[in-house]
Amino acid sequence: MVSDRYRKGLAEMRRHLGAEEADEYLAKIDAISSEFAKVNVEFPFGELYVRDTLDDKTRELCAVTALTVLGSALPELRVHVRAALNCGATRDEIVEVITQMIAYCGFPAATNALLTTKEVFDAIDAGKSTD
Amino acid sequence: MVSDRYRKGLAEMRRHLGAEEADEYLAKIDAISSEFAKVNVEFPFGELYVRDTLDDKTRELCAVTALTVLGSALPELRVHVRAALNCGATRDEIVEVITQMIAYCGFPAATNALLTTKEVFDAIDAGKSTD
Amino acid sequence: MVSDRYRKGLAEMRRHLGAEEADEYLAKIDAISSEFAKVNVEFPFGELYVRDTLDDKTRELCAVTALTVLGSALPELRVHVRAALNCGATRDEIVEVITQMIAYCGFPAATNALLTTKEVFDAIDAGKSTD
Amino acid sequence: MVSDRYRKGLAEMRRHLGAEEADEYLAKIDAISSEFAKVNVEFPFGELYVRDTLDDKTRELCAVTALTVLGSALPELRVHVRAALNCGATRDEIVEVITQMIAYCGFPAATNALLTTKEVFDAIDAGKSTD
Amino acid sequence: MVSDRYRKGLAEMRRHLGAEEADEYLAKIDAISSEFAKVNVEFPFGELYVRDTLDDKTRELCAVTALTVLGSALPELRVHVRAALNCGATRDEIVEVITQMIAYCGFPAATNALLTTKEVFDAIDAGKSTD
Amino acid sequence: MVSDRYRKGLAEMRRHLGAEEADEYLAKIDAISSEFAKVNVEFPFGELYVRDTLDDKTRELCAVTALTVLGSALPELRVHVRAALNCGATRDEIVEVITQMIAYCGFPAATNALLTTKEVFDAIDAGKSTD
Repeated sequence: MVSDRYRKGLAEMRRHLGAEEADEYLAKIDAISSEFAKVNVEFPFGELYVRDTLDDKTRELCAVTALTVLGSALPELRVHVRAALNCGATRDEIVEVITQMIAYCGFPAATNALLTTKEVFDAIDAGKSTD
Repeated sequence: MVSDRYRKGLAEMRRHLGAEEADEYLAKIDAISSEFAKVNVEFPFGELYVRDTLDDKTRELCAVTALTVLGSALPELRVHVRAALNCGATRDEIVEVITQMIAYCGFPAATNALLTTKEVFDAIDAGKSTD
Repeated sequence: MVSDRYRKGLAEMRRHLGAEEADEYLAKIDAISSEFAKVNVEFPFGELYVRDTLDDKTRELCAVTALTVLGSALPELRVHVRAALNCGATRDEIVEVITQMIAYCGFPAATNALLTTKEVFDAIDAGKSTD
Repeated sequence: MVSDRYRKGLAEMRRHLGAEEADEYLAKIDAISSEFAKVNVEFPFGELYVRDTLDDKTRELCAVTALTVLGSALPELRVHVRAALNCGATRDEIVEVITQMIAYCGFPAATNALLTTKEVFDAIDAGKSTD
Repeated sequence: MVSDRYRKGLAEMRRHLGAEEADEYLAKIDAISSEFAKVNVEFPFGELYVRDTLDDKTRELCAVTALTVLGSALPELRVHVRAALNCGATRDEIVEVITQMIAYCGFPAATNALLTTKEVFDAIDAGKSTD
Repeated sequence: MVSDRYRKGLAEMRRHLGAEEADEYLAKIDAISSEFAKVNVEFPFGELYVRDTLDDKTRELCAVTALTVLGSALPELRVHVRAALNCGATRDEIVEVITQMIAYCGFPAATNALLTTKEVFDAIDAGKSTD
């Protein structure tokens, strides 16, 4: 029943987000829509992220960029700040990307992203797997 | 009269955009506001881009990401597609970043960014320095 | 003192949101600005929603669509998820509209809308008139 | 080589947009990225639009809604105004949805959507398959 | 048939935009939807702008601000740059508001607003009533 | 070590936000990035706000406008509602600007801004320096 794309997507998603975090994330979505949870695995992770053209770290820095600019995507930013760290980005690089974004989306969106990132760093330092 | 930050910023800007393109860009802005042109050099380029934490290519892929997600920033996207190429990104990498953005901003914004990028590639192939 | 448009708008608003919910919503706005509360009744409900060209259910599915795409309108989404149910939309239809929006606004905005909708469904199941 | 999902998605896309218009649209995207063109068929049309929960006309009115609210998606709005007509929406219904959106995204985005829609209607009246 | 609110709104709109410009603007919208044209007069101008709490010049500088930040509202920005001048704002003040917006919406949206404003100033200097 | 621009920017920022509030705001940002905190002082306040072309009250009403339209900038809106009051705007003027924005960004963003502003007014009435 589970497609090959789903299997590959789930492995990719777990590698980026952490296995436990990915499963929790999907369970939360699956509780209202199994279709939404399925395409969340199959499309971004099973179709786009598995491609070789960009390395994982660059993809995650671009995800942090996008989620900063969107402004209203702070819950997803939390997930991808952790994913960026998992994929080899340093804290300084994540903060630098958000700081660069001041020039593209202004201070308010960049500030909210920065302070949310601080909360993620603090949760990691406190040993929490989610924040 | 010209600050050190301006001088460093202008060098950085020219390195990213190309000297001719940077000067043309600034002249267009300076024709209505010299203050705006000045801070455009000093702040993103003289203050943010000169920092070492991220390499130029990563910065420009993040710029392409941001300008894709914003949706209404296609003129600036043109400039930064060229800048990304100048800083060592391949055409495939630029297209890949835009394709990844489907997951973050949806098809309409990503499609407009992709078709604009095609026009930039075509202009480069036709030997034009701007498009 | 109360215009005909206000009277018609308030009836329309109560029919969509529920009488109690509409009155609570307006009281919250009226506590800071009676003008804002007045135009909130008169313009969308008294002028636009009363028109016959679209049925109530379609209007509310379009409202859910808009509030999903906006990204930062989750409090209003809560109100219109309930309104969509009041106007005959099923839970599956509401979830389907939000799922379709992945293609238009990307996963982050659609995910936030989906999880907010889950909270509304849960509050309804728990017998709460607001959430 | 072509997946079942692609085949179903292409049929769905052609039914919504018109066969010729769908093929032209994809050719334009395929000229820069075959991956992007492929997922454009497979994901929104082969995965989301083929589901039964919503009828085609409602889906297209929601698409018009989303593309109005986004503000910077006028080229895609042109495509979906035609698709909405193809799926049984009347001109009055399309205009009504855009008018309702004034309340959700304000006059500027709604006005731009309305005037773009006028251009599509005029192109149809002049017998043009694209505009 | 024409409400008092419409009459007051049209007078307000003509005072802000110029009589000829207001009439042309409404005719363009009325050509597709008389309802949309009607509410465009009655709601922002007949209901909001007629209130005394803010003077016309401040209202128009806030309109320029909003249309800059929205990013995809350049046609409306043209109208309100002229309106701001009609209401007593200087060119320098309009440019200054757009420059301040760099901090709130980033360089891309502010740059597009600035260059559009330049086109309006140039059209005025060339003696054109629209641009 | 501290530039002249920083010194002037900090004085300007304290005058707008209140000395205590400005210092708290910066401390929160400085806890994750001293660079971000530095440019937050130097660029908007040390470079843009210090210019004479617009008076402080007009600048703050434009800030309120921008933060309303952005939709996802409610934490920054809180700061600038207080700043607008500090710079001589009345509560009525702030509410009026937000009400005018209904026409530019729709009811959802304007409503969220209005209710957030109510919380700031309530906090001030309760004698709290932050909210």
